[in-house]
Amino acid sequence: MKHHNFLQQLGCQYPIIQAPMAGVQDGRLAIAVCQAGGLGSLPCAMLSPNEIEQQVAFIRQQTSQPFNVNFFAHSQVTYTPQIAKKWFLALKPYYEKLGLTEVDIPLSRAGSRQPFSQQFADLIADLKVPVVSFHFGLPEEALLEQVRASGAKIISTATTIAEAKWLEQRGVDAIIAQGLEAGGHRGMFLSQDINTQMGTFGLIPNLKKIVDVPIIAAGGISDATTVRCALELGADAVQVGTAFLLADEANTKPYHRQILQTEQACDTALTNIFSGGIARGIRNKIVDEMGICTDAPPFPHASFLINPIKSTAEQQNDYEYSSLWAGQNASLAKAGSAKSIIERLCGI
Amino acid sequence: MKHHNFLQQLGCQYPIIQAPMAGVQDGRLAIAVCQAGGLGSLPCAMLSPNEIEQQVAFIRQQTSQPFNVNFFAHSQVTYTPQIAKKWFLALKPYYEKLGLTEVDIPLSRAGSRQPFSQQFADLIADLKVPVVSFHFGLPEEALLEQVRASGAKIISTATTIAEAKWLEQRGVDAIIAQGLEAGGHRGMFLSQDINTQMGTFGLIPNLKKIVDVPIIAAGGISDATTVRCALELGADAVQVGTAFLLADEANTKPYHRQILQTEQACDTALTNIFSGGIARGIRNKIVDEMGICTDAPPFPHASFLINPIKSTAEQQNDYEYSSLWAGQNASLAKAGSAKSIIERLCGI
Repeated sequence: MKHHNFLQQLGCQYPIIQAPMAGVQDGRLAIAVCQAGGLGSLPCAMLSPNEIEQQVAFIRQQTSQPFNVNFFAHSQVTYTPQIAKKWFLALKPYYEKLGLTEVDIPLSRAGSRQPFSQQFADLIADLKVPVVSFHFGLPEEALLEQVRASGAKIISTATTIAEAKWLEQRGVDAIIAQGLEAGGHRGMFLSQDINTQMGTFGLIPNLKKIVDVPIIAAGGISDATTVRCALELGADAVQVGTAFLLADEANTKPYHRQILQTEQACDTALTNIFSGGIARGIRNKIVDEMGICTDAPPFPHASFLINPIKSTAEQQNDYEYSSLWAGQNASLAKAGSAKSIIERLCGI
Repeated sequence: MKHHNFLQQLGCQYPIIQAPMAGVQDGRLAIAVCQAGGLGSLPCAMLSPNEIEQQVAFIRQQTSQPFNVNFFAHSQVTYTPQIAKKWFLALKPYYEKLGLTEVDIPLSRAGSRQPFSQQFADLIADLKVPVVSFHFGLPEEALLEQVRASGAKIISTATTIAEAKWLEQRGVDAIIAQGLEAGGHRGMFLSQDINTQMGTFGLIPNLKKIVDVPIIAAGGISDATTVRCALELGADAVQVGTAFLLADEANTKPYHRQILQTEQACDTALTNIFSGGIARGIRNKIVDEMGICTDAPPFPHASFLINPIKSTAEQQNDYEYSSLWAGQNASLAKAGSAKSIIERLCGI
């Protein structure tokens, strides 16, 4: 496995970033990846500052290797009663089908995804982590400057050429080129138009030509062949999500883990119904029926009303209403320890 | 360049199919590709049986190498006055802007894309061509059987796993795996849902695992690196369109050729406005404004009303209303003879 500059300079053995996956992993997976020679990531968007501090301390206790902490940089849109009502009407048939009413809507919105804020920036300045990655663009300049001043390398995701240029202008240290194949939330931030989204095979060579910062390929990278091809196409490193959902050290739910290992996992679709943001998951009943729904509120507000549907069905072992995040090459992945997954990705 | 079975068995030197591109090429490009060791293709959907016969005779006169003739297999939907009226209303602002009225709608619909029919099947039975490829599925079984009985190898395009399984069940000899990166019309035929479309990087490995016929990768393949990666990902051969738009032997219009060689060509989008079928072209004003429009009639009927807009603007050297077909890796291609393009694709 050829050494590539960006991660090598950080001190990583392999050109592999474990994608931060909010909700399905914590510091445990990041540690295992760091110990195995990759760059482990801690997703922070659903954690409190206190939890982040604890998790970072835990990581540092277990490994001296560099690691990445990830935040969301979406603009917070106000969730008005009008928006909520429209969304509730769109979901009503599912509420009725599962015997739910408005009473079942949770009052607390804890656990919702928070955008990067002054509080987080102060925390990062304090913690002095090696790498900070952002999804959905970048925070405002003053906050970004605070992160930069802390000494952290800054990474963010581009899904189009315009987004990559925008990130380069703002001085990021590397760009994640997230091809359409990628599972989970797309980092789209300048446009929500899926007609202009690019496949991994198109995005990497274009970004390599157009921007002058290291490119980290993401989307469809799940085995040694896809890692090798992503590097050949021009990437300096790769970011892998779906394959790490099957890591022993991830908190992926048993049903999600199980479905990922069936042929059903080959069949994914883009949808915005679980959060309001466009994301890729395994097709099921609700994804097929709702697709990308114009009644869904902006990210992250859609989750609030759909969560009771998901959890009620899941209690009945029905996963036709669940967000089964997966990229298009889930079938190339194989369950095991994070170390075994990294070795497999590197063809060792 | 490693030899791959499907095209090698046919007698081709290189694992490269020149994508049939109706409207921008004829037998001349097919001949040049065949002579250079690839599989040249003749797009027939916009030709009369008489023209096909002449072109095939021309190809055979110039080369003894195998070649491919391509047909469309869409179901012909009736173009009702209601459908036309809705579409005209959607396009009216452009008619007005360019000083056009209903009077400018051409009376003749000659040149429109014809689906494969009994007449074409009889012709193929007669001509006994080596390879017949279809776009938008396959013709009905009796017609397909006639083609098969003529001795032709049969190829068709899949954009999803379901489409590939469908084609395999019907006994095709090879499947073109058309990733989302591909320029021009997408071969989608079981679903028009772009949320479930796959990138080249995802489609090839999945089809390789799931179906048991040779896979020909298409979409984003424009230079030696992308050819090599497509083969590494599991393809037996590749089909290249955009790069051949820049061949000396293609009939690509000068403005199209010129724009393909600028940075603008990196910026493509899916649209259905030029024919009713979903296709990828370089972004311009009308593509950005209309995108995928629900008022557009089914393929191929949209072309009839939009053509006066395109041609009027083009007469004024305005290409903001033109169909500038291109895949996502147009910027990797380089103009020259078909032979030089094949050698470049093969890294010779």
